[in-house]
Amino acid sequence: MMTPSKINIAEKFSKLPDEDYCVRIIAKMNNYEVKIVKFKGEFVWHSHPDTDETFIILKGKMLMHFRDKIIEVTGGEMIVIPKGVEHKPASEQGYEMLLIEPEGVPNTGNTENERTIEKIEWI
Amino acid sequence: MMTPSKINIAEKFSKLPDEDYCVRIIAKMNNYEVKIVKFKGEFVWHSHPDTDETFIILKGKMLMHFRDKIIEVTGGEMIVIPKGVEHKPASEQGYEMLLIEPEGVPNTGNTENERTIEKIEWI
Repeated sequence: MMTPSKINIAEKFSKLPDEDYCVRIIAKMNNYEVKIVKFKGEFVWHSHPDTDETFIILKGKMLMHFRDKIIEVTGGEMIVIPKGVEHKPASEQGYEMLLIEPEGVPNTGNTENERTIEKIEWI
Repeated sequence: MMTPSKINIAEKFSKLPDEDYCVRIIAKMNNYEVKIVKFKGEFVWHSHPDTDETFIILKGKMLMHFRDKIIEVTGGEMIVIPKGVEHKPASEQGYEMLLIEPEGVPNTGNTENERTIEKIEWI
């Protein structure tokens, strides 16, 4: 069995292209993936019918919209979105976060649109 | 379905008792748990035969001992320990981290000793 390597999270972010929305896989744990996400703008309403997902905000501020309220999540805070719950992340200033969820979860959940990424790459 | 609440990670750490080793659950995603861990000292050699586990170091420095090498993991870095791989965390100065793994994983893996915690509590 191989001894694993450590991962420097800031170094991974530094390799992202200069775009408002980037998502890349940086690690795998069992059948779960740890992803880095950089986002600025307004995402699309969607839900994930089969899984919860964990957002750990590292920098900046996310306004997580739900149908009944908006929760502001800033660097050092996290939120777990329960499966089936509609949500829409938005951010004027932008944020960086870790996203943890099972492998193969579509980034736009139960919807398909201009934000949909066919295959999320490793970085 | 309930809209979730956000979790402030530093606030959770601030509630820990003044002990060298504390571990508490702060969130659940599917059948996985997100735990906060504060540790200073030398842990015990152990492995988890059935699961990988993810260590995300927030503060301080961990020396993760493997049978063939030692990896220094500091704030802003992470490491995934593959299932079955023997490891022993140690730290002179101490560290704070997030630990992500399936619910019910024993903290001392395949061993039982003075570090073993029967039931990890929520905070």
